[in-house]
Parts: sequence; C-alpha cells; structure tokens
Amino acid sequence: MALNPQYADIGNGFVQQYYAIFDDPAQRANVVNFYSATESFMTFEGQQIQGSAKIMEKLSSLSFQKISRVLTAIDSQPMFDGGVLINVLGRLQTDDDQPHAYVQSFVLKPIGNSFFVQHDVFRLSLHDL
Amino acid sequence: MALNPQYADIGNGFVQQYYAIFDDPAQRANVVNFYSATESFMTFEGQQIQGSAKIMEKLSSLSFQKISRVLTAIDSQPMFDGGVLINVLGRLQTDDDQPHAYVQSFVLKPIGNSFFVQHDVFRLSLHDL
Repeated sequence: MALNPQYADIGNGFVQQYYAIFDDPAQRANVVNFYSATESFMTFEGQQIQGSAKIMEKLSSLSFQKISRVLTAIDSQPMFDGGVLINVLGRLQTDDDQPHAYVQSFVLKPIGNSFFVQHDVFRLSLHDL
Repeated sequence: MALNPQYADIGNGFVQQYYAIFDDPAQRANVVNFYSATESFMTFEGQQIQGSAKIMEKLSSLSFQKISRVLTAIDSQPMFDGGVLINVLGRLQTDDDQPHAYVQSFVLKPIGNSFFVQHDVFRLSLHDL
C-alpha cells in the first residue's frame, strides 16, 4: 500500500461521520461498526480495551444521554500502509455538565475500499481548555 | 511483525528521552536522529512537513531558548507492525511566556532493534488548560 493522497478528506469525513453517529443516542450503538472484533485498540482515560465488543461495553457504560461538541482542530497524516492518523482537539459537553476539553486520536486502517478504526485514544483534559 | 508487549515501557522511555534532548538547548539539534530523512511526517500547528531535514528546519525556527514542561498523561498502544502509538498531554512554558497546554502524538516505527518517529502531530491548545 502507498500513501493515500486523500488523507485529509478521509480524516475530516471520518470525524464528521463518527461523531454524528456517536452523538445521536438513537444511533450510538452503531459505532461498533467502525471497530474490528479483534484488531481494534481503545485507550479510554488511560484504560486499555481491545476488540469491538469490549469497546462497545465501555462506551455503553457512559452515563450521559445528550452530548454536544465543538471541534477546534483536526490534523490528519497519511500512513505508509494506506491508513490515516487523525488527531482531534475539541470541547464536549454531556447532559448539563460543564464543557470539557478533550483530545482523541484515531488510526484508520484500510480494509478493501474502506477503513476501520485500529487505534482510538481518548482523554478528557484534567483542566478547562 | 507482531504486537510488542513492551509498548508501555517503550512509549514512556521514548517520551522521556525525546523531551530530555528537545528541552536542552545544547542538545536540541540531536532530535534530528529520531526522524527518517524521507519517511517521517510532522504536523506542527496544522503545518504538514515531511523528512528530517525540513522537520529540523521547522524546529530550529522556533524562537525560544528555555522550555520546561509537565506531562499530565502518556497513553501508548501497541501497533500491528511492532510500532507504538503514543499520545502525550501536557503543559509547556517557553522562556517567560505563559504556560500552555499541548498535545503531541507520535507513531514509532520499528527499524532493526530500534524505532524512528514516523508520525509526529503537535498542537498547542488555543485555550489555557
């Protein structure tokens, strides 16, 4: 595989699509489709999780319903296996909580004509951004 | 290549070593050795740069001398080519400026018994962390 020259569009498109599904309580369970059963890693607030079933178990355990977010930066890089590294900075607000800054990194791995999320690292900021 | 079970130690060790060199004005030029001449990407505040020569040109153009930092989180994940994905959150202060929150992601690629930095994404936070 070679570098995908569309990496920026792929990164931006993925982020929009992923959060549109994640942020809609009626669709949130469908984010499972972005992950592989065995070859996806998530680190959520320092907790390491492997595989789509355990990832969904974690995401389903989050207690909020409403979530809104504002993205401040999306940085994408092409990877040498045809994948895309994506770093997102933003602020999110769940239910009636205070807004929090967060960072999330994704590595998209090519599979056929599509991608799955091989790596996902999420951190809320300890401080207000 | 398989997953490297030492990924957390590799991630923590790399971050300590990289910043020890970067943060010492007398040694900073040696960070060039972490990058490949052609197969390293840096995104610095949204600016995309490829190759160790151009990366060093960018880093050398930064006008501070003194830099100090406090790391708040280092999250590492093993990658399927034997590499390591590392996400760092921290605060840094250059010369007598205000401290700023920042995030930096690295992808370490294995080469022989060592690693080079294939991907490096750096962002100062727009807001105070």
